[in-house]
Amino acid sequence: MSGAVPQMSDSGRIAIIAGNGALPDQVVACLQQGGRDHRVIAIRGEASDQVRRTAAIELGWGEIGRLYKFLERNGCEEILLIGGISKRPDAMSFLGDFGTLRRLPKILKALIGGDDSLLTKVIGLFEVEGYRVVGIRDVAKELLATQGIIGKHKPSEADLRDMKLALEATRRLGELDIGQAAVAVGGRVVALEGAEGTDAMLERCRDLRAIGRIRSRGAAGVLVKSAKPNQDLRVDLPAIGPRTIELAHAAGLAGVAVHAGNALVSEQELTLNKADELGLFVYGFDPDTQA
Amino acid sequence: MSGAVPQMSDSGRIAIIAGNGALPDQVVACLQQGGRDHRVIAIRGEASDQVRRTAAIELGWGEIGRLYKFLERNGCEEILLIGGISKRPDAMSFLGDFGTLRRLPKILKALIGGDDSLLTKVIGLFEVEGYRVVGIRDVAKELLATQGIIGKHKPSEADLRDMKLALEATRRLGELDIGQAAVAVGGRVVALEGAEGTDAMLERCRDLRAIGRIRSRGAAGVLVKSAKPNQDLRVDLPAIGPRTIELAHAAGLAGVAVHAGNALVSEQELTLNKADELGLFVYGFDPDTQA
Repeated sequence: MSGAVPQMSDSGRIAIIAGNGALPDQVVACLQQGGRDHRVIAIRGEASDQVRRTAAIELGWGEIGRLYKFLERNGCEEILLIGGISKRPDAMSFLGDFGTLRRLPKILKALIGGDDSLLTKVIGLFEVEGYRVVGIRDVAKELLATQGIIGKHKPSEADLRDMKLALEATRRLGELDIGQAAVAVGGRVVALEGAEGTDAMLERCRDLRAIGRIRSRGAAGVLVKSAKPNQDLRVDLPAIGPRTIELAHAAGLAGVAVHAGNALVSEQELTLNKADELGLFVYGFDPDTQA
Repeated sequence: MSGAVPQMSDSGRIAIIAGNGALPDQVVACLQQGGRDHRVIAIRGEASDQVRRTAAIELGWGEIGRLYKFLERNGCEEILLIGGISKRPDAMSFLGDFGTLRRLPKILKALIGGDDSLLTKVIGLFEVEGYRVVGIRDVAKELLATQGIIGKHKPSEADLRDMKLALEATRRLGELDIGQAAVAVGGRVVALEGAEGTDAMLERCRDLRAIGRIRSRGAAGVLVKSAKPNQDLRVDLPAIGPRTIELAHAAGLAGVAVHAGNALVSEQELTLNKADELGLFVYGFDPDTQA
C-alpha cells in the first residue's frame, strides 16, 4: 500500500524499520500524508499490529541478509530506525541467514569496538553499506515540539525560573553524558535523571512530595527534558507523551518543558489534551536564548 | 561529669547542642578524651539517652531564653550543633520562655529573610549574640575520613575511574547546590542525588541492578559523597555510616569514596568492619589532586 504513493519528496525512497510503541505508526502516517515514498519493515515480536498491516516485510534479528536484500531490491536510499525494542536479542538469534553470517565479523567488530552507544554502532552498520540513516527531525517534523507555549496553559514567572534551573542542570549532566531530564521546584533542583529514566524519576518526585521532602503551595515546578550534546538525535530523541504528563501531574508539577525542534511529543493530541485537562503547561524552549 | 575535666585546649569552653543519632555521643567522647572543656545541652525529644546522661541541661524549642542564660552562666564561648532533628518544631513550640519571645522578631527575621539554608540562619542567630559556631572539623578531627584507603580493601583501576567520574558529577551538581552524592558503575554515572538523599539513591541503584538497568560482572562501581562548594561544613558535613555500606553493598558497588578531611565516618569501627566484611573499599580522596 505504501509503495503505491507516488514519490513527491526530493529525497529517495525511505525504509522505516519499526520497533514497538505508537510512534512508528505516527511516523508512517506523516510520510503518507506528506506523500513521501517509503517501505515499512516490521521488527518481528516488536512492531504493533497496526504497523505490521502497513509493513512490506517482517524480519527477525537473524535476518540481516534478507534485510539488506530487501533494501536493495526496493531501491531504499535512506533508513529511519523508530520505536522501542523491549526484548534484547540474544546472540543466538543473530545466527540466522547467510547475509547475517557473512557480515558477522563486521557486525561484531562494530558492536564490540569503540565507545559509541549500541544504536550509534547500528547506524554505522547501515552507513558502511552505503545507506543514509535519518531521524524524525528529517522526515516528520510535525511530531516535534514547537517553540513557546504548546498546550493551553501558560508557565508563570516562577515556573520559568524553575525551567531555567532544571535546564542548567540537564546541561551539566549532558556534558558528562548522564541523564537528559531534571526537575526543579520552587527554585531548587530536586531530581536528576540517571539510569532509572524519566518516568521513574517522576515517580520519585511524586513519592518525595507525598512525604514532604518536596513542598509547594499547589502545583509548582517543572520537568525539563533536553538532549545531551553527544546524543545522536537520529535514533534517540528526548520524548514526552501522555504518561509523562500523568506522572508530572502526580508529582505536583506545574508543567513540562522540552527543547523545541529537538524533542518528540508522542501521541501529540492525547498528550496535549491530558496536559490541558490536568492544568499542566507544555513548553518548547530554545536553549540558546532560554526563551 | 563533663565539667570536671580540666581545660586543656587553647580554645574556650564549648557547648555541644545535641540532636539525635549516634554522632553527638561520639563527639562528646572525643572531647572528653582530648580534655576539651565542654557542656552538653540535650535537645528534648531528640538527644539519645546516652547523651542525656552526659548533658548538663535538657532544653526544648521554646527555651531559647534559658539556652542563652545557660551559655552565659557557664562561660561557653563556642557552640557545636550536632546530630539530627527528626521532628520539625511547629511555630507554637517557639512560644516559650521570655528570652525566646524577646528575640522572636530577630529569630523570625533571620529565619524568613535571605537565601541561606535554615541551619545557616540558626548559626547567624548564635553569631549575632557573640558566640563562635564551630564544626566537627574544628574539634573532633578523629571522626573524619583520612586520605587514601581507609578500610581493608583497595579500589581497582576501574574503581578509581568510576570514582573520578562520580566526583566530577557531584562537582557539577554542587555548583548548582543540588545533591552531594553520585554513583558511577563501569564508566557511566547511573545515579545522582537530589532531594531524596543518599540512602534512597542507593536503594534505587539496588533496584536498577535487580532489573538489569545497571550491569556488571561482580561488584563494581563507586558511591562518591562530596561537599557542595557553598555547604556550611560546620553544620552539614557529608557523612557515611554502617547503613551507607550496607546499601552500597546491596547495590552491588565495589566501594565508597568521600572527601578526606571534609566527610564524617559515623560509627567508624562498625562502618569499617562492615565494609571489610562485605568486601567494599572505603576511600578518602583529595579532590584537588583526585588521588
